[in-house]
Amino acid sequence: MALDRKTGTAPREFKIIGTRPARPDGIDKVTGRARFGADMSAPGMLVGRVLRSPHAHARIKSIDSSAAEALSGVHAVVTRADFPAPGEDVADILDNCMAGEKALYDGHAVAAVAASSAAVARQALKLIKVEYEPLPHVTDVDAAMAVDAPALHEGRANETVPDGHSPNVMARHAFGHGDIEAGLAQADRVLERSYRTEATHQGYIEPHACLASMGADGQADLWCCTQGHYMVRNTCAAILGITQGQLRVTASEIGGGFGGKTTVFLEPVALMLAKKTGRPVKMVMSRAEVLRATGPTSSSSVDIRLGMTSDGRITAGFAELRYQGGAYPGAPVDMGAMSAFAPYDLENVRTIGWDVVTNRPKAAAYRAPGAPMAAFAVESAIDELARDLGLDPLEVRLKNAAREGTRASYGPTYPAIGLEATLRTARDHPHWSAPLGPNQGRGVACGFWFNFGGDTCVSLNITPDGTVNLSEGNPDIGGSRASMSMMAAEELGIPYDKVRTVIADTGSLGQNEVTDGSRVTFAVGLATIEAARAAKREMCKRAAQVWGIDEEAVIWEDGAARPSGPNAGEHPPMTLADIAAIASNTGGPIAGHYEINAEGAGVSFATHMVDTEVDPDTGAVTILRYTVFQDAGKAVHPSYVEGQFQGGAVQGIGWALNEEYIYDDNGILQNAGFLDYRIPVASDLPMIDAVILEIPNPGHPYGVRGVGETSIVPPLAAIANAVSAATGTRMSDLPMSPPKVLAAIQAR
Amino acid sequence: MALDRKTGTAPREFKIIGTRPARPDGIDKVTGRARFGADMSAPGMLVGRVLRSPHAHARIKSIDSSAAEALSGVHAVVTRADFPAPGEDVADILDNCMAGEKALYDGHAVAAVAASSAAVARQALKLIKVEYEPLPHVTDVDAAMAVDAPALHEGRANETVPDGHSPNVMARHAFGHGDIEAGLAQADRVLERSYRTEATHQGYIEPHACLASMGADGQADLWCCTQGHYMVRNTCAAILGITQGQLRVTASEIGGGFGGKTTVFLEPVALMLAKKTGRPVKMVMSRAEVLRATGPTSSSSVDIRLGMTSDGRITAGFAELRYQGGAYPGAPVDMGAMSAFAPYDLENVRTIGWDVVTNRPKAAAYRAPGAPMAAFAVESAIDELARDLGLDPLEVRLKNAAREGTRASYGPTYPAIGLEATLRTARDHPHWSAPLGPNQGRGVACGFWFNFGGDTCVSLNITPDGTVNLSEGNPDIGGSRASMSMMAAEELGIPYDKVRTVIADTGSLGQNEVTDGSRVTFAVGLATIEAARAAKREMCKRAAQVWGIDEEAVIWEDGAARPSGPNAGEHPPMTLADIAAIASNTGGPIAGHYEINAEGAGVSFATHMVDTEVDPDTGAVTILRYTVFQDAGKAVHPSYVEGQFQGGAVQGIGWALNEEYIYDDNGILQNAGFLDYRIPVASDLPMIDAVILEIPNPGHPYGVRGVGETSIVPPLAAIANAVSAATGTRMSDLPMSPPKVLAAIQAR
Repeated sequence: MALDRKTGTAPREFKIIGTRPARPDGIDKVTGRARFGADMSAPGMLVGRVLRSPHAHARIKSIDSSAAEALSGVHAVVTRADFPAPGEDVADILDNCMAGEKALYDGHAVAAVAASSAAVARQALKLIKVEYEPLPHVTDVDAAMAVDAPALHEGRANETVPDGHSPNVMARHAFGHGDIEAGLAQADRVLERSYRTEATHQGYIEPHACLASMGADGQADLWCCTQGHYMVRNTCAAILGITQGQLRVTASEIGGGFGGKTTVFLEPVALMLAKKTGRPVKMVMSRAEVLRATGPTSSSSVDIRLGMTSDGRITAGFAELRYQGGAYPGAPVDMGAMSAFAPYDLENVRTIGWDVVTNRPKAAAYRAPGAPMAAFAVESAIDELARDLGLDPLEVRLKNAAREGTRASYGPTYPAIGLEATLRTARDHPHWSAPLGPNQGRGVACGFWFNFGGDTCVSLNITPDGTVNLSEGNPDIGGSRASMSMMAAEELGIPYDKVRTVIADTGSLGQNEVTDGSRVTFAVGLATIEAARAAKREMCKRAAQVWGIDEEAVIWEDGAARPSGPNAGEHPPMTLADIAAIASNTGGPIAGHYEINAEGAGVSFATHMVDTEVDPDTGAVTILRYTVFQDAGKAVHPSYVEGQFQGGAVQGIGWALNEEYIYDDNGILQNAGFLDYRIPVASDLPMIDAVILEIPNPGHPYGVRGVGETSIVPPLAAIANAVSAATGTRMSDLPMSPPKVLAAIQAR
Repeated sequence: MALDRKTGTAPREFKIIGTRPARPDGIDKVTGRARFGADMSAPGMLVGRVLRSPHAHARIKSIDSSAAEALSGVHAVVTRADFPAPGEDVADILDNCMAGEKALYDGHAVAAVAASSAAVARQALKLIKVEYEPLPHVTDVDAAMAVDAPALHEGRANETVPDGHSPNVMARHAFGHGDIEAGLAQADRVLERSYRTEATHQGYIEPHACLASMGADGQADLWCCTQGHYMVRNTCAAILGITQGQLRVTASEIGGGFGGKTTVFLEPVALMLAKKTGRPVKMVMSRAEVLRATGPTSSSSVDIRLGMTSDGRITAGFAELRYQGGAYPGAPVDMGAMSAFAPYDLENVRTIGWDVVTNRPKAAAYRAPGAPMAAFAVESAIDELARDLGLDPLEVRLKNAAREGTRASYGPTYPAIGLEATLRTARDHPHWSAPLGPNQGRGVACGFWFNFGGDTCVSLNITPDGTVNLSEGNPDIGGSRASMSMMAAEELGIPYDKVRTVIADTGSLGQNEVTDGSRVTFAVGLATIEAARAAKREMCKRAAQVWGIDEEAVIWEDGAARPSGPNAGEHPPMTLADIAAIASNTGGPIAGHYEINAEGAGVSFATHMVDTEVDPDTGAVTILRYTVFQDAGKAVHPSYVEGQFQGGAVQGIGWALNEEYIYDDNGILQNAGFLDYRIPVASDLPMIDAVILEIPNPGHPYGVRGVGETSIVPPLAAIANAVSAATGTRMSDLPMSPPKVLAAIQAR
């Protein structure tokens, strides 16, 4: 039960929120009816393919595509020369989609071809002659920070970066308050330690795919797999030099994104090929292309200084974070620096983040971008200090936990939050006191994520037979169609299966922020509720018209308009279906619309607990048990919430134990496939237990918080803490793959 | 210049309305980028094909599909037994899509197959064994009205039909006022004559086509070529037994409709095949299927009694109209009876319409359904009487013309209308006084059409870069995307090319009436203007917020918000693009929405003038010159208006001279192809001159009337009058094909 924070009057009982109805996309996905990015075709369609750099860093001296263009079946070759000079806001994005003067990483696109078949396209790629001048390269973040490191972007300066730094430093971000040195002086023990994490990929099942079509008049259509078709529209329009109104983008069903589909790769290229050929062009990446040339998250190198009193009070926390963001600025180190100490109420806290470019693919968002690496460092350090001081790591966290009124390390003051609740629930959970065997260790860690709001549009249309079509503009990556249908049904007082939510194309609905920042259940949910309320007002008006009474004298209750006040009981209630049936005769179709830049997304906290067993002979780590405690604000559909908790934990497990990008000495990716890039599979995992807590978000009518990202923040540290406990040696370098763990055991 | 009838204050100058910008679908259609009904595909798609009755009338004793089902590559066969028992409102529609107990016409669907290829599907159709019991049939309307005619629907009674009539009479419609016998008694001359017209097909270029997909949970998607995807949704949902919300229908580009795509043929069958197979199913008709089994208009048999004084006053008009509507009730004889005398101000007028079924495909709407045949009779009779009395046929029409305040023959009183203006303009036009040669004759005739309004939804969304996406729910058969973009641009004060209008799917926008009744430019235009006004109010609010002034103190003028009154000039104007750029920071995306059951569609009148030459040796008729005079209310895009005037005239020319359905003695259609069913081609036609008159419709903010249908009403009579003048013998039986004209000349 949550308060209706908009009206603020009475607690409300939910009828549909909190239940677990069948997911609307389930049957489509298991039967193949769902249409993903590669599932759209058009008459006369060509196949687009990309030629990619075999060098980590090279000047492109010339491109000769004449032989390719002469090949029968080739309709066009495009290179960077085909694109207009980009505006500043899309210059790096275009350069990442199609290299300009230099190829900046292995796999960087340098040309693309549109041909009558995949075979012809492949052959054509071989005929394109690119003259490269190889340049020295760098792929490691610390190496890239050396003043004499090979420079990717000569002469590009940023006012946030002090003089004398490596030319690969693109920005510096600093947050905090208090006095670190004074705080450390108050500590009984101070820890200084460095941590490293490797780049990991989101590992979505579906590779990037799109189908583009463009007329000579600039009218264009694009079907693609994305987390944000409005972002695709706005970005591609800017790159192609057309207006946003000219480009209509439809989002396909999406086979996972996790942040990796919040930018464009193929889309502007497909549009340019379509423009040049006058034909529809389909492009689909291979898995190797996905790994070589889309956006994993940053690798990181983090230094921590942490002071603690002997009774567990943290007196000061300092973190210096170096994230490599691949070939262009924009590593999520700002969010890493903001989130590092966000779970704690600290008097003295400071974080500095360095945004560093290397000869790797540009980092993209990956679930709570930047936060897991920061949390890995901070939560490992807290654990190490607590253990050194003989303190319970959960109690230490509780003692320092942020709560309502805490000034967050990144600035604002928290409203009602759920961190303490997750810690207390974890402490009281049977998992915490369960016995452990030999070579086994238990770890805990906390995690924080901001959650976003942003531009959101919803239209709710009532059909003549009294069902509801809800139209929203965010691709459904985590169950939003179910959640929106539930919120609309709850608000309207009708059964869940009377609502069908669809993802509208950009031509049919206003601007929507990308499906990111765990924003959708919060922001689109809020807009859905408001759109439903607008429809209810209109339905009450129609009933009033039929009854010949004042519209203020009609209320909506239990799915029906009813006369209220002095008129109460004078007329039998009119249900939604009753009113829908006479809509045409009482003025026309009934709808509710809502547009908002949503604010008030509640921050989110989680505590994870994990038991591991380490094989002392091989260094292999087994996850024995895993429990997630997280505040959902209000769980609209608990199964989806549990799924988010579990999915984040599993991705964190992969990141902690196995996943990494392996580059050879030439900067060439060595493991561009799922046989060599090892994500966890079902047999690697126990059932992940999910404990949902509900501390209502005061910024949402039903108390909803985003839940999608926080669950990937704690696992890296929780598992490192557990492995450290099992092995008796601190693991500060991810992934904790068997060779590394074995070496650590042997060095102990 | 038209009055703004909503505000009613000052005449307004239009900036965009009345200009002729490039059509937004032009390049797409000439380059093949436009996607029509057959242009959509989906993975795993099957091909659907229909087995059709070879009998005009037969009882279906059994259907054995086992051999077809056993054929490799066949996924399903459906017959009527697969469909649930239909509700009364869709029973005839389903029976027409898939025969029940009886096949009622040559080409009636009796089974359908979904197979892996067209070749397999064709083979499968041959393996379906249908046992028929042939029954006596009737295809002529007068024969079907005989009391002992073969009955199509035994025992189906209608309360409007007096006892003792043929069982094929499905309804009787009567309109009028005054006393016919008394009126005739006042006449100096009375004419009694019978007229016949043949069924004609709309002749759209694109055959019916659709792609259906349906999950086991009843969630379904349909892509189809239609004039109304909401109609398709509602009809198919009712037939399939799912809710309207479960079926999302997207309208393809449409290659002509003219009324013939206002119902369903393949769509419920494709959905049932998709349901049964669990696979997407595409169905495309051949031209022969289109002619055999879709809906042409009625053939007709009409008796007229008309009285006139020697100075040309019509003292009484009576018409008895018999329309055959094919195998099911619903011939447009009600509209024929209503429209027959609608152009005239008559004291004594009466029409009786008989709705008659025959063993032919069910009639569908065809441009001003029912009106051309009625006008053919009435306008021929007026012409004949005028000539007999030595009067000018234009002056006779002017003398009797309906005007503002006239009580229409079908009931209501006219507001401002344009009939007299068309007649006066015609009389003063050089065409009327141009000399004629031997074997040449000139004819005139008037025409009337109601124009409809109906349920309409529009959403107007402003993109961040200040372009506009207008989303409407009516397939564009006559230029509505251009007209809507123009009305939105006019209202917002921005250039035409800043607006892109798209046709939204049924999941993304509320209920819209079919694109029929010339309703779209009127009703969707009205909603577009209101949606734009809503967006302007929101933009003024944002500007007020930025300026910190009252929102009532901001006006929208010339594409920008401006402070007004005491604040005038205090702040520089903010353009739409300025406000769009800050929308996110001032509350969120900006939109305008409007839902209405639009009323106030202005009635429409036209006068046509035509010169013909008749070859006395062959009876061939050549159209020498043709001029259309029609009231458009306000011509939004004059080129499209002229195109409508010309297109209606051309279809009327085909109807008058050549087009007809030819059935053999067994009731089998003999000319199911465009080689034998002869529509006019370019070489048959002169340039059709179009004269646009603008008498504003008081029911529309810009004065717009529908213009799409009226132009097909006068040509039948105008050409008959011209041929009669050229030959000196009255032509009262259409088509006036060479053998008939030659016979008439020889009989003279």
